[in-house]
Amino acid sequence: MTDRHDYHVNGPLPETPDNDATAGAWPKTTVIGSRRSRVDAYERVSGTAVYPHDVSLPGMLHGAILRCPHAHAKVLSIDTTAAEKMAGVHAVITRATPGTDIPWYERGGTFSSTLFDATCRYAGEEVAAVAAETPLQAADAVRAIEVTYEVLPFVIDDAEALAPGAPAVHDGGNMVGEPRLRERGDLAAGFGEADAVVERTYRTECQIHAPMEPHGSVARWDGNRLTVWDSTQGVFPVQETLARVFALPMSNIRVIGHYMGGGFGAKLETGKYTVMAAIMARMTARPVKIFLPREDCFTATGNRPANTMTIKIGARSDGTLTAIDYHSLGAAGAYAYGADTSSLAVYLYRCPNLRAEDVTVYTNAGKARPMRAPGFPQGAWALEQAMNELAAKVGIDPIAFRLQNLATELQSDPPMPYTSYQLAACLENGAAAFGWQEAAERRVTEGDIRRGVGAAACFWGYAGGPPSTVVVKLFADGSANLNLGASDIGTGTKTWAAMIVAEELGVPVDRIQVENADTATGQYATPSGGSKTVPSDSPAVLAAAAAVKRQLLGFAAEQLEVEPGDLEIRDGEVVSRSDGEKHLAVTAVEMLGRRGLIMGTGYRDPNPEGSVTFPCAAQFCEVEVDTRTGEIRILRFLGAHDSGRVLNRLTFDNQVFGGMAMGIGLGVTEERVLDRRTGRMVNANFHDYKVPTILDVADSHACLAIDVPDEAFNSTGTKGLGEPATIPTAAAIANAVADALGIRVTAAPLTPRAILEAVGSQGKEA
Amino acid sequence: MTDRHDYHVNGPLPETPDNDATAGAWPKTTVIGSRRSRVDAYERVSGTAVYPHDVSLPGMLHGAILRCPHAHAKVLSIDTTAAEKMAGVHAVITRATPGTDIPWYERGGTFSSTLFDATCRYAGEEVAAVAAETPLQAADAVRAIEVTYEVLPFVIDDAEALAPGAPAVHDGGNMVGEPRLRERGDLAAGFGEADAVVERTYRTECQIHAPMEPHGSVARWDGNRLTVWDSTQGVFPVQETLARVFALPMSNIRVIGHYMGGGFGAKLETGKYTVMAAIMARMTARPVKIFLPREDCFTATGNRPANTMTIKIGARSDGTLTAIDYHSLGAAGAYAYGADTSSLAVYLYRCPNLRAEDVTVYTNAGKARPMRAPGFPQGAWALEQAMNELAAKVGIDPIAFRLQNLATELQSDPPMPYTSYQLAACLENGAAAFGWQEAAERRVTEGDIRRGVGAAACFWGYAGGPPSTVVVKLFADGSANLNLGASDIGTGTKTWAAMIVAEELGVPVDRIQVENADTATGQYATPSGGSKTVPSDSPAVLAAAAAVKRQLLGFAAEQLEVEPGDLEIRDGEVVSRSDGEKHLAVTAVEMLGRRGLIMGTGYRDPNPEGSVTFPCAAQFCEVEVDTRTGEIRILRFLGAHDSGRVLNRLTFDNQVFGGMAMGIGLGVTEERVLDRRTGRMVNANFHDYKVPTILDVADSHACLAIDVPDEAFNSTGTKGLGEPATIPTAAAIANAVADALGIRVTAAPLTPRAILEAVGSQGKEA
Repeated sequence: MTDRHDYHVNGPLPETPDNDATAGAWPKTTVIGSRRSRVDAYERVSGTAVYPHDVSLPGMLHGAILRCPHAHAKVLSIDTTAAEKMAGVHAVITRATPGTDIPWYERGGTFSSTLFDATCRYAGEEVAAVAAETPLQAADAVRAIEVTYEVLPFVIDDAEALAPGAPAVHDGGNMVGEPRLRERGDLAAGFGEADAVVERTYRTECQIHAPMEPHGSVARWDGNRLTVWDSTQGVFPVQETLARVFALPMSNIRVIGHYMGGGFGAKLETGKYTVMAAIMARMTARPVKIFLPREDCFTATGNRPANTMTIKIGARSDGTLTAIDYHSLGAAGAYAYGADTSSLAVYLYRCPNLRAEDVTVYTNAGKARPMRAPGFPQGAWALEQAMNELAAKVGIDPIAFRLQNLATELQSDPPMPYTSYQLAACLENGAAAFGWQEAAERRVTEGDIRRGVGAAACFWGYAGGPPSTVVVKLFADGSANLNLGASDIGTGTKTWAAMIVAEELGVPVDRIQVENADTATGQYATPSGGSKTVPSDSPAVLAAAAAVKRQLLGFAAEQLEVEPGDLEIRDGEVVSRSDGEKHLAVTAVEMLGRRGLIMGTGYRDPNPEGSVTFPCAAQFCEVEVDTRTGEIRILRFLGAHDSGRVLNRLTFDNQVFGGMAMGIGLGVTEERVLDRRTGRMVNANFHDYKVPTILDVADSHACLAIDVPDEAFNSTGTKGLGEPATIPTAAAIANAVADALGIRVTAAPLTPRAILEAVGSQGKEA
Repeated sequence: MTDRHDYHVNGPLPETPDNDATAGAWPKTTVIGSRRSRVDAYERVSGTAVYPHDVSLPGMLHGAILRCPHAHAKVLSIDTTAAEKMAGVHAVITRATPGTDIPWYERGGTFSSTLFDATCRYAGEEVAAVAAETPLQAADAVRAIEVTYEVLPFVIDDAEALAPGAPAVHDGGNMVGEPRLRERGDLAAGFGEADAVVERTYRTECQIHAPMEPHGSVARWDGNRLTVWDSTQGVFPVQETLARVFALPMSNIRVIGHYMGGGFGAKLETGKYTVMAAIMARMTARPVKIFLPREDCFTATGNRPANTMTIKIGARSDGTLTAIDYHSLGAAGAYAYGADTSSLAVYLYRCPNLRAEDVTVYTNAGKARPMRAPGFPQGAWALEQAMNELAAKVGIDPIAFRLQNLATELQSDPPMPYTSYQLAACLENGAAAFGWQEAAERRVTEGDIRRGVGAAACFWGYAGGPPSTVVVKLFADGSANLNLGASDIGTGTKTWAAMIVAEELGVPVDRIQVENADTATGQYATPSGGSKTVPSDSPAVLAAAAAVKRQLLGFAAEQLEVEPGDLEIRDGEVVSRSDGEKHLAVTAVEMLGRRGLIMGTGYRDPNPEGSVTFPCAAQFCEVEVDTRTGEIRILRFLGAHDSGRVLNRLTFDNQVFGGMAMGIGLGVTEERVLDRRTGRMVNANFHDYKVPTILDVADSHACLAIDVPDEAFNSTGTKGLGEPATIPTAAAIANAVADALGIRVTAAPLTPRAILEAVGSQGKEA
């Protein structure tokens, strides 16, 4: 039951090397917890920030990729003669090009393809690439490449993929690995004890990551040294992959990602486009830029898999859960990452008898990739709707029902304590802040416009840890520089990191220079994903700042002839606590000037052993449903979040609102639509694929921070936020819609058509 | 007598912070001391290296500077109306522009001017600047600015500047500060003891730095954050100056100088062009690039001042020096750095009775700036010629005469020991390697083509020290990254630094990535100048690499279950010394993978107290002089150099040859020629101003390294080389020419005309 990929167990992980700071949480804060605009807000809004998409180098060529139009086909031959002769074309590469025979692996390490595979397993798979003087020349040349395909039968439906005789996406059948089965207790006995049982099948559709900045890279060689500007969530894994692919030392690869325009999991891996750009850059001895067209971002960079989840759940009449039987089928697409959804069912509520099975299948439709809380929003969609139905059956308020059944330790064998887990507070304080009772009393279940309330809870099963290395430098004038490895994927990483330095060193945030995400000049961090950037990297930032402070106070103590422990930093001065007459401007500390600067290095301490750390949340919403048009109007939405200590309340709130927007997408507006005749995506654009925007969450949404530092977990007391913010959203909406309509729509998204169909069938029943 | 600006006394300097390495010199080396091509050779020769001159940013404007054509003038009015209306012009700034009233100071801290001064004190001083779409538009607009000057009387000659009634360059007379007087013993008594006395006046002319890359910068603002790409010898002082000028924290200023095309002292300071580019970039909200035309580099970026030196020197008939009376007059130009030349006379030879006076005067001619061994080549020109004359008078071979009188400790009060000082070996081994006796016997003093030999010795009075901070990172694949603050001014800094890491960690040099000279992402170093980069920064590099090694061996020791002290790194493996069966690939050290990388920080240890460290050298040459044309042909040249341990023998040799080329320039070919009627330089171009090239030193020159590590000085046993390489060159040539001609030409450069005049006068005497 203790699967490291599923939840995060604290325990033996890299030791802390040489942390010379005994950094710990602050007794009181002046900067941390306040609302701070981004440190790079000016650059971002003025357009002076250079995103990878903005990189333009002298002599740079532009690349384009030819993609297979068929859902399943063999490449029989490729004729590039015409393309190669076209104006401006400098390179055309296919699987026949020497050096392109690169094994390409899925996350997890199985090599299942090559850079250009002889078999294309989804409509959008890479067949050839071109580098030309201009983007249009490259696009034209791609169209001039003649490919002969043997079109193969395909399967795009997850259930059909398991049927006997279904087309095989890969040799060896369409099942991805073995089903994951987790069991505890006695399921039959559990259902035997139940006074009420709910059983239902739920469905979520395939959702696309859709970051604002498309996927892409610029590659430049200097001899055998490769520099890549990449729109990535983590520069170090890209460095490692490129070193492997080109059989070069990592010291020959520099990956830069100072800015990047959003990533929700699909930018955790190295793109084939990156390697293609680098290959063509080497062939042409010119920099090559490949940024994917928006359509390709929809079809070929990954997605949240569609899931079909059947849950049977029982409780005694007093509301005690007795049994959960959960089954999930996920459609991984042509190259699997995994589509398991059962973790919430397994761990969120105390339930002695459980069976949970996750099955994943290959289909000829894109590829599953980790997307903001992989599996969890789908699992919440099923579990949290079932919990509401069951609460109704036993006649208990759904919030009370959840509180009654909350798991307060990890139901592993043996059970393990949480370091800090404020889900009860999320539910209780959230309900109070939202006005749950009042809203429930406003329920309207008749007429054209119905109104209802819904809630859902969650945890997120990962909290990060080592390694992370950070360097902080104090300049001679008392301003500072912070260098961390983490990418800022739009979440304000640079800002909270600067705030920690400001808090610890008493340097105003606007006097701190932040450098990040550069394998050559930067420190080390794991990729920004899994809601772990704050809890993994913030303790290293604090330790680095504390290392500077320790040195500074030590030098000042010698000058002032006091003990270092007697000193503190206050408004740019080092001041004796015991004798206010003894003070010194930071800039008057002689050793600062004599050294040029004071530098401190910080490492992430190991996580504590024998415990587990989960951020958690409850979200509440009130909706109106127009039964004439099928439209859902979200009146109010509140997220109550326990992510440990809040570093920046402004980015905290915005992260919650962003997560809710994505959850609204999953629950109400977003859906990849495939043409069943061709297997091609028909809505691969922002007009037909509806991503919610800031306007959808602007005024109606609120955030309640359960700001309890998780001091048992790490020195900053922080846990993650990015993924819990999106996990319960769709389920909360579904519960509110069901509350309003008196009928439950089990398949996401809750489009007007789905609502109207449900209301129509309800009418017929009546 | 202990003037810190004159020689470098080891002693209390910044303590070593937290060096966790007990780094020391290597018992034997495999990489250090070998001949290694530059780690960035490919980038430099292929043109892919981006020098500041190559930087081109989107929307970048080009700047040009209007300079005063008069040697001395008051700016009465400036009319920019026409210029502002010209096509492509975006900004015109003059002293009337708000924000340009910036105090401008000389090295040493005296504010003596402003960015645009109302009085122009030399032909070439800045009056206005323009930023336009293209360089030609900017140049055209500069010409369209109308300035009304009140032309003032000027003085360009150093002797005339001190005469009563001379035009005053600055208020308060033309003497720069007080003359520097250094005395010991009893001069009159000393000359009383002398059996032979030589007295003569020597002259060196003004020499121009002439780096291949002109001076210049690109400035870009993001809000109130300024990034500058600068062709500088040190990014940190530029950062500090710009922070002061714009009243911003240093954290708002980023200065980058990864590559730069040569610097010999004039690029130690922040240029006015840098500030002008930044001002106009802020005004226009666009990046601005200003690179000076070659002519301006000659006239307005500094020079080695012209000096007139009178030396009277006496010895007993047994060759013992008894007295030195030395007087130097230097022409500092309009903005003084100092033109003292007496240090060699004071310290090179043991002499109990001494008087040395340095006088510096302002003139209306450019500005003196530190140039490769400020004052020393001039001082050698005088002292080392006088020593030869005196040796001849007492009938002792000039090498033997020097050896007999060498000072073996610093003649301060009290005297101070040298850490290591191999000047005797330079003279003895150098003479042997050169074949001094044989060459002397080949002397030809009759006929059209004469032949002679000459030698000269020197020390250089600075050896560096703290602060320096370096970071080394070991990547997961065993390749490495090195980050140091120092600029590589063409001397191979990146290469020797990588070699130290290679030696210490057993990582091949071509698996080491080097990043340097960036105030935002880099570590701290003082500017590259004063021959101190190697001795200041190499111990920090070693300490950083050793810190990585210590951690790596510690982790490996745990895995192998041995003591860390039993382990060494050999060919990518960690191997037990006592048990060869116990070994482990570096990449198999688990903690390396678990941490992502291993990082080590190194600091420069303080210098030892109570001693002094000088690199030193002797150079030997054999020349032919054509008495019909006045041409000097250098047949052979040998430099014998004690710079402590040799890190890279290839760059060592090339540094010596480069120094010799510059010395040949001072002695034979280079001379700033001013028009006495206008004060303007008439040979401000590479056609009329003759800089020796590699072809002048290619085949005839050799280098003997006295490779004795100075282990008492620092952990790498290194001293500097850049400056000693050029100090004795001109004097050695002059001695060889005098040896050939039998007559001494005391004024540099030894042009054909000067030689012919001397030979002619010799004929008349005969």
